[in-house]
Amino acid sequence: MDEAITPELALFWINNTWMLIASFMVFLMHLGFAALEAGMTQSKNTVNILFKNICILSIGLLTYALVGFNLMYPGEAYAGAFWGFAGFGINTDPSGLTIAYADGAYTYWTDFIFQAMFAATAATIVSGAVAERVRLSSFLLFAAVYVAIAYPMVGMWHWGGGWLAETGFHDFAGSTIVHSVGGWAALTGAWVLGPRISKYDGRSDQDLRGHNLPLAAIGVLLLWFGWYGFNGGSVLSADPAAVSLVVVTTSLAAAMGVLSAAMVSWWVHQKPNLSMALNGALAGLVGITASADIVTPMAAIIIGLVSGILVIGAVHAMDHMRIDDPVGAVPVHLVCGIWGTLAVGLVSVEHSIMVQMLGIAATGAFCVPVSLTLFTLLDRTLGMRVDEEHELYGLDYHEHGMEAYGAFPLRTDEHFGLAAK
Amino acid sequence: MDEAITPELALFWINNTWMLIASFMVFLMHLGFAALEAGMTQSKNTVNILFKNICILSIGLLTYALVGFNLMYPGEAYAGAFWGFAGFGINTDPSGLTIAYADGAYTYWTDFIFQAMFAATAATIVSGAVAERVRLSSFLLFAAVYVAIAYPMVGMWHWGGGWLAETGFHDFAGSTIVHSVGGWAALTGAWVLGPRISKYDGRSDQDLRGHNLPLAAIGVLLLWFGWYGFNGGSVLSADPAAVSLVVVTTSLAAAMGVLSAAMVSWWVHQKPNLSMALNGALAGLVGITASADIVTPMAAIIIGLVSGILVIGAVHAMDHMRIDDPVGAVPVHLVCGIWGTLAVGLVSVEHSIMVQMLGIAATGAFCVPVSLTLFTLLDRTLGMRVDEEHELYGLDYHEHGMEAYGAFPLRTDEHFGLAAK
Amino acid sequence: MDEAITPELALFWINNTWMLIASFMVFLMHLGFAALEAGMTQSKNTVNILFKNICILSIGLLTYALVGFNLMYPGEAYAGAFWGFAGFGINTDPSGLTIAYADGAYTYWTDFIFQAMFAATAATIVSGAVAERVRLSSFLLFAAVYVAIAYPMVGMWHWGGGWLAETGFHDFAGSTIVHSVGGWAALTGAWVLGPRISKYDGRSDQDLRGHNLPLAAIGVLLLWFGWYGFNGGSVLSADPAAVSLVVVTTSLAAAMGVLSAAMVSWWVHQKPNLSMALNGALAGLVGITASADIVTPMAAIIIGLVSGILVIGAVHAMDHMRIDDPVGAVPVHLVCGIWGTLAVGLVSVEHSIMVQMLGIAATGAFCVPVSLTLFTLLDRTLGMRVDEEHELYGLDYHEHGMEAYGAFPLRTDEHFGLAAK
Repeated sequence: MDEAITPELALFWINNTWMLIASFMVFLMHLGFAALEAGMTQSKNTVNILFKNICILSIGLLTYALVGFNLMYPGEAYAGAFWGFAGFGINTDPSGLTIAYADGAYTYWTDFIFQAMFAATAATIVSGAVAERVRLSSFLLFAAVYVAIAYPMVGMWHWGGGWLAETGFHDFAGSTIVHSVGGWAALTGAWVLGPRISKYDGRSDQDLRGHNLPLAAIGVLLLWFGWYGFNGGSVLSADPAAVSLVVVTTSLAAAMGVLSAAMVSWWVHQKPNLSMALNGALAGLVGITASADIVTPMAAIIIGLVSGILVIGAVHAMDHMRIDDPVGAVPVHLVCGIWGTLAVGLVSVEHSIMVQMLGIAATGAFCVPVSLTLFTLLDRTLGMRVDEEHELYGLDYHEHGMEAYGAFPLRTDEHFGLAAK
Repeated sequence: MDEAITPELALFWINNTWMLIASFMVFLMHLGFAALEAGMTQSKNTVNILFKNICILSIGLLTYALVGFNLMYPGEAYAGAFWGFAGFGINTDPSGLTIAYADGAYTYWTDFIFQAMFAATAATIVSGAVAERVRLSSFLLFAAVYVAIAYPMVGMWHWGGGWLAETGFHDFAGSTIVHSVGGWAALTGAWVLGPRISKYDGRSDQDLRGHNLPLAAIGVLLLWFGWYGFNGGSVLSADPAAVSLVVVTTSLAAAMGVLSAAMVSWWVHQKPNLSMALNGALAGLVGITASADIVTPMAAIIIGLVSGILVIGAVHAMDHMRIDDPVGAVPVHLVCGIWGTLAVGLVSVEHSIMVQMLGIAATGAFCVPVSLTLFTLLDRTLGMRVDEEHELYGLDYHEHGMEAYGAFPLRTDEHFGLAAK
Repeated sequence: MDEAITPELALFWINNTWMLIASFMVFLMHLGFAALEAGMTQSKNTVNILFKNICILSIGLLTYALVGFNLMYPGEAYAGAFWGFAGFGINTDPSGLTIAYADGAYTYWTDFIFQAMFAATAATIVSGAVAERVRLSSFLLFAAVYVAIAYPMVGMWHWGGGWLAETGFHDFAGSTIVHSVGGWAALTGAWVLGPRISKYDGRSDQDLRGHNLPLAAIGVLLLWFGWYGFNGGSVLSADPAAVSLVVVTTSLAAAMGVLSAAMVSWWVHQKPNLSMALNGALAGLVGITASADIVTPMAAIIIGLVSGILVIGAVHAMDHMRIDDPVGAVPVHLVCGIWGTLAVGLVSVEHSIMVQMLGIAATGAFCVPVSLTLFTLLDRTLGMRVDEEHELYGLDYHEHGMEAYGAFPLRTDEHFGLAAK
């Protein structure tokens, strides 16, 4: 190091280290999403879901490096409050690369990786809503375009210094900018694709239930863990007061979301429903994401409480509208994302609820047409939905030629090779 | 920031960041406990166990915010060496909220969240011992009261500056204060409930074995990972010498616990037993928890060695007494918790083994009557144990109306929808 | 603390904290390896694999404490450029134990634990290649010797200041020094043991496929997560510029590895293969490990691209040679380890490709004879391979008397205890 060792340098080192660790935790959310989606769906589509999710993560990181980062944070290359772009690829030698960047908080590389991990989540949210019937190649194309262009556009409005930032809109870690952006496309995708075969025939809907709830529970608790990086890292420094408040409000909203959804489902269905308790945790987490930095613990608990109720109501509303969302992506990410963004206006006198509504509406007005156009284009060309036979037999067999649990159904003496004896 | 940037400020930032990361790691222990308990039990009770564990975590965080934190760390509102309480709810604006707290190590919020993550573990330990037969609502009520009142009372004696702290008792991260507190209630609960049907009929006990050992292994290794935050965070700062010694002693005790339990079980059962190796890791971890900050690496290895032997002996002793503890919570957390606390007196000339025994005995003398009273009260009112039919069919079906592995047993052509063709 | 609080002290604290967190992340890689290996193999051998992996980790930590650390980093006790040793056991009171060590970056204990976590990975790599047919006790003996002596010897050549360090050889985090060291022994072990029964009989090879791909996916994503500690920690400080560059290059290589392997397998097999996509991630990670600190993001992407292609080719080459490597350890760790080490010479003008080749060749020339000798000795004495009957029935039943999924195949009414009614 050529730099003098000063207290400012020490803060830079700790900030950068925290932001990297937060990035790793957001990375782990991708394992959480994959486990949740696989666990909540049928075992005949598990290979497809795992393949899809690891590809989305990879496509997300690469397209964000190629175009997304420079579109979302145009810096000097600003092309206007609605649209900006600073060229292709991450810079191998931007000024300030090896020294403090962003007010001394972290390096350019750290900035990129933290944002890239976020970007990939937006497409992953969509994945759950279209699971078990979407054509793999079409969905991957959708994900690439959505992460490369649609997500960074909206992100730029608020976090890149665009027009929404100027209105006073507050969305701390992305109830709207991340979760609703994914949620709107999830809703559009589920609606375009239509429900899975037999979902709403009133007879066999039990067959469509999740095949591995421990896997789903692993997914949800890893998502909760990763959220500490998602929200805690959104402070953009290791500032003790700010980060620790965010961690406490995030924890309490998630905990209350669990109990709220569990209690409501217990009351509605007469039995305590594990899927609802798990979705309650995510509902609370999405709900607090917009306001985690400015609310009191009691307000966080109330936000979680309402989130837990909303997620149950939204699951029922979706079924009533016959929009099939296998993992509840729309109730969790869109409905609670909207609620969390509105809650900012309710709990804080400094933020106008009208401005919050403007941000929500603008995001929907952008994401729905964009995703609808993308899904429709793909449907007319490659096709968005798999053949009926493939859906019935399972995507694993037809699209991948593999089984998730190869040896399970055969665990007899014959399988053990004894037939040969 | 209005504060001057000084080296002291930089240390505050790094301390606080480390304590938050340690908290996240302790959070992940809850996933570890859930996976271990689910994996070590029958698949017909898996939904129940996952539901129970995510609710305990949530109840733990919320009740600790409401009452536990102020009971355990009364500060100025001290009501005596045995009992103290500083009011309800976590303070939204305590003095020092946004600045250094606890000797400049971390903020008030960080203090709360680290302690809250600990508190919830005490109830989770009990969960494993009463699994597969406890009534859900009764257990959740027990957990709420135990985390809100019983755990913080004992915690206050030692860590809150109460009478035990004045005796010179040493329990670094809670072999007694956390693990025995859970372990005594686990023993009481398992004894009150009685064994699972057919456990000790000498015929079908094989049927009660764990249904998913990979899930159990995931659980144990996540617990080991989280323990680095549990013990490492108990330094209450990022002091390099202290934290790194704790990490080394913790690692070596766990490793020796694995080998010790594996070897003893190999010798006793003639075959190397995976469950015992997994419990050996936890035994070593519980054993080193009281002394991780003061022992040499060689002493840590010896503590782990004895822990691994004790856990095997205790599993057999429990079965001999016909106390049914499906996951081995009592052998791991109570027996090795006591051993680890005693070991402080054996390895350190500065600590009296008599005082260590006093702390162990006082904890038992408090926890057993409290948990016995709670369990008995609940048994007489709501009932602690499910109906025999529910136990036989499984709690998932009767209490939740769900199956953990919905589609597995039906993976035939019929299931794939081909019957319709 | 008696030390004055200076900016240098603050840097020491943050460096040490980062190195410990990196160590915990490398620890989690052991869970990743266990999950990957168990998921990619048959359910009748799952208990054996989990037992083996948790024992390797434990043996690795303990033998590294006993002898490995002092062999790899001889310090003053240097016995020559090829061989050095500083005595048995980790020192309980080395000078500088509680203060800055290694240029103020971290403590002696931190140095030990980070290196110990690395050491255990080398033996774990071998485990996957010999899975499903190796005798447990023989393999554990092999692992103990390999981690205690062989791995530290090669490590000393480069990282301990030995002869390879003097040549200008560059292997940042161990494409050769860790992954190839494991990979050579994996190749030797798989070759000595021969293929699993029926693997190459052209008929039943489908039966040998992995039994739990979600478990394998969990394993790979945990390995990816842990790799941020493996590579990021290899900076040996929290230096923001260095660590953040390493994290970005590591991420992009892994992402490109996934897409590259997925695309090639899609083209070759006509279907997108999940196992190949998962191995592609690991291939990219191993490939970038030697050069993560010196390459541009674009070079990292190219390294990942080539790694993904190589891993597919190597899997086919292994099958062509009838060397049975159930999890693809040799294609991932040896082939991509060699490629990554060569890539240093291709992307950097400062490093000679001839010197890189020298390091690769010397490692192979040391590891192959050593592991061949060990395997042969064990084969002639204890036996390296289990009996044919044990292999057919499964190691779980014969070597452990346990089943990984005890209650699964019996989930009928009878199992639920109703037969007794």
